[in-house]
Amino acid sequence: MSELTVERVREAFGALASGDRRAMLEYWDEDVTFEIPGNHAHAGRHEGLDSFLGFLKTVGELSGGTYTAENVTIMVNAEDGYSVDVNTNRALRAGAPSDSTSPYDLLDVTALHFLRWRDGRIVEGRGVILGDGGSTSALWWSPINQDGSRRGI
Amino acid sequence: MSELTVERVREAFGALASGDRRAMLEYWDEDVTFEIPGNHAHAGRHEGLDSFLGFLKTVGELSGGTYTAENVTIMVNAEDGYSVDVNTNRALRAGAPSDSTSPYDLLDVTALHFLRWRDGRIVEGRGVILGDGGSTSALWWSPINQDGSRRGI
Amino acid sequence: MSELTVERVREAFGALASGDRRAMLEYWDEDVTFEIPGNHAHAGRHEGLDSFLGFLKTVGELSGGTYTAENVTIMVNAEDGYSVDVNTNRALRAGAPSDSTSPYDLLDVTALHFLRWRDGRIVEGRGVILGDGGSTSALWWSPINQDGSRRGI
Amino acid sequence: MSELTVERVREAFGALASGDRRAMLEYWDEDVTFEIPGNHAHAGRHEGLDSFLGFLKTVGELSGGTYTAENVTIMVNAEDGYSVDVNTNRALRAGAPSDSTSPYDLLDVTALHFLRWRDGRIVEGRGVILGDGGSTSALWWSPINQDGSRRGI
Repeated sequence: MSELTVERVREAFGALASGDRRAMLEYWDEDVTFEIPGNHAHAGRHEGLDSFLGFLKTVGELSGGTYTAENVTIMVNAEDGYSVDVNTNRALRAGAPSDSTSPYDLLDVTALHFLRWRDGRIVEGRGVILGDGGSTSALWWSPINQDGSRRGI
Repeated sequence: MSELTVERVREAFGALASGDRRAMLEYWDEDVTFEIPGNHAHAGRHEGLDSFLGFLKTVGELSGGTYTAENVTIMVNAEDGYSVDVNTNRALRAGAPSDSTSPYDLLDVTALHFLRWRDGRIVEGRGVILGDGGSTSALWWSPINQDGSRRGI
Repeated sequence: MSELTVERVREAFGALASGDRRAMLEYWDEDVTFEIPGNHAHAGRHEGLDSFLGFLKTVGELSGGTYTAENVTIMVNAEDGYSVDVNTNRALRAGAPSDSTSPYDLLDVTALHFLRWRDGRIVEGRGVILGDGGSTSALWWSPINQDGSRRGI
Repeated sequence: MSELTVERVREAFGALASGDRRAMLEYWDEDVTFEIPGNHAHAGRHEGLDSFLGFLKTVGELSGGTYTAENVTIMVNAEDGYSVDVNTNRALRAGAPSDSTSPYDLLDVTALHFLRWRDGRIVEGRGVILGDGGSTSALWWSPINQDGSRRGI
């Protein structure tokens, strides 16, 4: 079993991004639960790796592929089996004007993942958004545009 | 063309509840827009009577048919072509314990419809919730249970 | 006792704006309760005319006197003793850049007052904001700027 | 300069709880900023240790001294100069029925502090609440009771 290190956390997200399911399963338990914060349509605890991957696909669609994450720091407590990685996230809603700063269009938050590891794999993840990002991201996730019309996607 | 009266507002909602599309169209314009307040998955401006009826069907499903509305009062301004009807609404989420008072389970709000009429028919409706009902109903509409798990429905 | 008419509702708000307490008391009961929607620091049911006037003063301070209301329509039901007046409200937070469109700075909502009258006077008022205005106005009312710093006022 | 360890994080909160300012200043920079999440009256970035202590005093008052925190885990990245401590927090609003489960009365969340250290002291703290705790705690922090009346405190 691999030791829990900063490097291993980094690798876990690298595997997730690779699209290689076999690589993912070296870091992510097949039955991992992953909680998306807030109470929008995609919030709550997704059960199982496939459900979590489905969520990530949704993010890609809603943001028209603009979602980016820049890592700030990673911490681990190997003894307790926990890690936290902090990231700056940015995403523009698909179809929004590219220079929009409206929180209905632009997600621009610092967020973190709180992960619980067991036997070298992530068994539980919880996403969290800092500051007032929970409120502003509720507008981004909403099915409505700033003018009250419902979005096409 | 029928005059805009308190009685006519009452009849418009009676027609809506009847399920008789022909009766509905005497009060509701086929292209009516109807705004559901907030930013949950079903919020925003529904375009057209069919879209609005689809929303009402969703409410029925999410509440397992428990949604009730008790009218408080109705006001009209026939000259301006507007009406407001105020109602007390109650609905229990499908599957929730029948005695739950958690806002994730129980919707218990006073709300109103602000309607614009033209040529004897409703062309625009906007729903509004009084007090802090917008916050508590966000929990009811959310896809998550109080424990963070995602609802079956 | 004066009859409840559209004109009388208009006069009630004129009296409120006049600053003339004696004029106010012809329309507003001394024990009137007035509910401000949402759950921000100034939300909830203000008890008594003085408490309501104190709230209005707060709005003036927070907005540096920029708060404006443009009436859309007024409705009454004299028999039931209720009125509704719908208004478009705009206010810039004191100190914010005058061209800011951030919801932390700019309040730009359609809202209404639902008033209950007794013996010719308003005994209960409830403010309500349409659309997703409850969410965006929560940011305006908040004690923080968009960058997370706490406001001077 | 002391090394950043799990034990040192624990000691920093111990010093904060001690009320001994001199002990605090061994762990907390006098100019520390501390961000309280959300947009309620006490949210945002408190500037300086005194402002942060003032916030903690407010929590004590609003909760009638019932606020408790149970540590789940602590993580550090000494090289980057960051720590995270995760805690389960519980607090009953002063004056609320002791068996109330309403989110207006009872705060019951898992939250964490993301701390930045420099020269052995905390220079920046950011509080974060997991799950949908940001929404439910907005009700707890609000100045209103569940029935819409304004709280005495």
